[in-house]
Amino acid sequence: MQSVHIERGKVSIRETVKPKRGKSQAILKLIAGGICNTDLELLRGYYSFKGTPGHEFVAEVVDADSKKWVGKRVVGEINAACGKCEWCRKKLGRHCPDRTVLGIVNHPGAFAEFFTLPEANLLEVPKGVRDEHAVFTEPVAAACEILEQVRIAKDEPVAVLGDGKLGLLIAQVLRAAAGAKVTLYGKHKSKLAIAADMGIQTVITEKLPEGAYAKVVEATGSAAGLEQAVRMTRPRGHVIAKSTIHGKTTLDMAPVVVNEISIVGSRCGRFEPALRLIKGRKLNLDPMLNGGEFALPDAAQAFAKAQQRGILKVLLRNA
Amino acid sequence: MQSVHIERGKVSIRETVKPKRGKSQAILKLIAGGICNTDLELLRGYYSFKGTPGHEFVAEVVDADSKKWVGKRVVGEINAACGKCEWCRKKLGRHCPDRTVLGIVNHPGAFAEFFTLPEANLLEVPKGVRDEHAVFTEPVAAACEILEQVRIAKDEPVAVLGDGKLGLLIAQVLRAAAGAKVTLYGKHKSKLAIAADMGIQTVITEKLPEGAYAKVVEATGSAAGLEQAVRMTRPRGHVIAKSTIHGKTTLDMAPVVVNEISIVGSRCGRFEPALRLIKGRKLNLDPMLNGGEFALPDAAQAFAKAQQRGILKVLLRNA
Repeated sequence: MQSVHIERGKVSIRETVKPKRGKSQAILKLIAGGICNTDLELLRGYYSFKGTPGHEFVAEVVDADSKKWVGKRVVGEINAACGKCEWCRKKLGRHCPDRTVLGIVNHPGAFAEFFTLPEANLLEVPKGVRDEHAVFTEPVAAACEILEQVRIAKDEPVAVLGDGKLGLLIAQVLRAAAGAKVTLYGKHKSKLAIAADMGIQTVITEKLPEGAYAKVVEATGSAAGLEQAVRMTRPRGHVIAKSTIHGKTTLDMAPVVVNEISIVGSRCGRFEPALRLIKGRKLNLDPMLNGGEFALPDAAQAFAKAQQRGILKVLLRNA
Repeated sequence: MQSVHIERGKVSIRETVKPKRGKSQAILKLIAGGICNTDLELLRGYYSFKGTPGHEFVAEVVDADSKKWVGKRVVGEINAACGKCEWCRKKLGRHCPDRTVLGIVNHPGAFAEFFTLPEANLLEVPKGVRDEHAVFTEPVAAACEILEQVRIAKDEPVAVLGDGKLGLLIAQVLRAAAGAKVTLYGKHKSKLAIAADMGIQTVITEKLPEGAYAKVVEATGSAAGLEQAVRMTRPRGHVIAKSTIHGKTTLDMAPVVVNEISIVGSRCGRFEPALRLIKGRKLNLDPMLNGGEFALPDAAQAFAKAQQRGILKVLLRNA
């Protein structure tokens, strides 16, 4: 079968052996995958990665222990956990120390004709949901995760910093799922417009307001974002840190301590609430699909496209 | 009257005018003050400070609107707030944007024969409490603040990083007030012994355990401490950041985000629970008074002593 391979900054297609499945594992046939910033970071050498990336996907189950899955169209949580440790028992397999992570850590990713995931990770995609929307389940789940970590009240003012893919999804999710009064701060008129279309207040980042919000989500993807977010936060407020940045961040901790601010790291989330939001058409996803679709063998072009200025989501389609 | 003055790294004694009090203010006559690390930082130029420092004190009220205060021996909260804003209404005057801070921000400090504080900030020191113990109320309150920010269960393992004054008090407070199973990590056998005497487990810092604690208190006073504390923290755990460090801290945010760790800034606390712990003799304070007492006019020697290796608390006595 064909697999995307990345190594030392290069994207190539390799002919690989179709994966076999272990106990409780499903074999999935890719329908479509989405290229995420993490994939671009992996390409740049983050996690010393080499192999097949891909963790945003919609696929068809071709084999599994429970035959009821076969033929189903699914998305799947990307952390494959041991199922036995204390984290797994608390339904927090996302923090299982023995986990592998699809397309990121010790688990060949979804940018291949076939790949595997534990059956327990799968969710069926409801009929009415289009493939290209289902692909967003993983990043929407990452946005939903914020609501499991901090309490956000209806009509509560929340600032989201960064108008990249994740920032746009977070702004929309906090408004749609929690009723927050979101203001999205970004640098790109065309990207901000996607949120503005959903009734979200948007601001071109020039001078950021100081100490203005009790909740600030940092999704800039840049090392400078955290310090900006801290400056925007009121005493006793929360900065939700979403950017995984390669390398060190510098931060003046004095305002964090003096103003007793909490910086809350936030990563992957549960898929159910995300799929529910997508199914309910609560999110403005179509304008984010501005990078077009590429066939799996054209992955190198797809990755090049994903790195162009202004491009949000690029999809890879399996034939 | 005589006041301690610090400016550009020098400690001097100045003859100044006895302060007048405004409405709702009390005039206090210093009995004894404690030199704190913040005072040493002010001496080094932190907050571009020049003036009279001192915020750890026990004093006698010599004048106030409510005459019931006169003659009372008191300690006092160091943030002098407006009393009207939303923070003050929530009893969080410590975050009032218009606050002055005794001996730190726009408010002449306690290292003088006389100084002022709002009556509302005062607490009477119970009869049985010695002056040199009452002086610890402010730093003990800062330790108590942790318990108002994160829930610590009885017998919960908590790591405290740093065996300076604040680390020693935090370790003792978390054990005495919350029943936590505290392990204090430090570099100084003699300092760790003060906590060990109270039944606290102590460890000389060599190789710190990774991902071992759900709660880690960072009280090293050094920029490297935060990253060490993050490394010691389990997924979904809390780092309580207590060190106010002048300048920037560098931090790898990836483990914070991936492990969804919360970094909680923590500063001053309420005085009542602190004074209760001191009154109940729950803390091992005497061995911390290893810097001796100096008369107010000998403040320069007292500050020099406080900077010597191994010295914890130095007191200034008013005649």
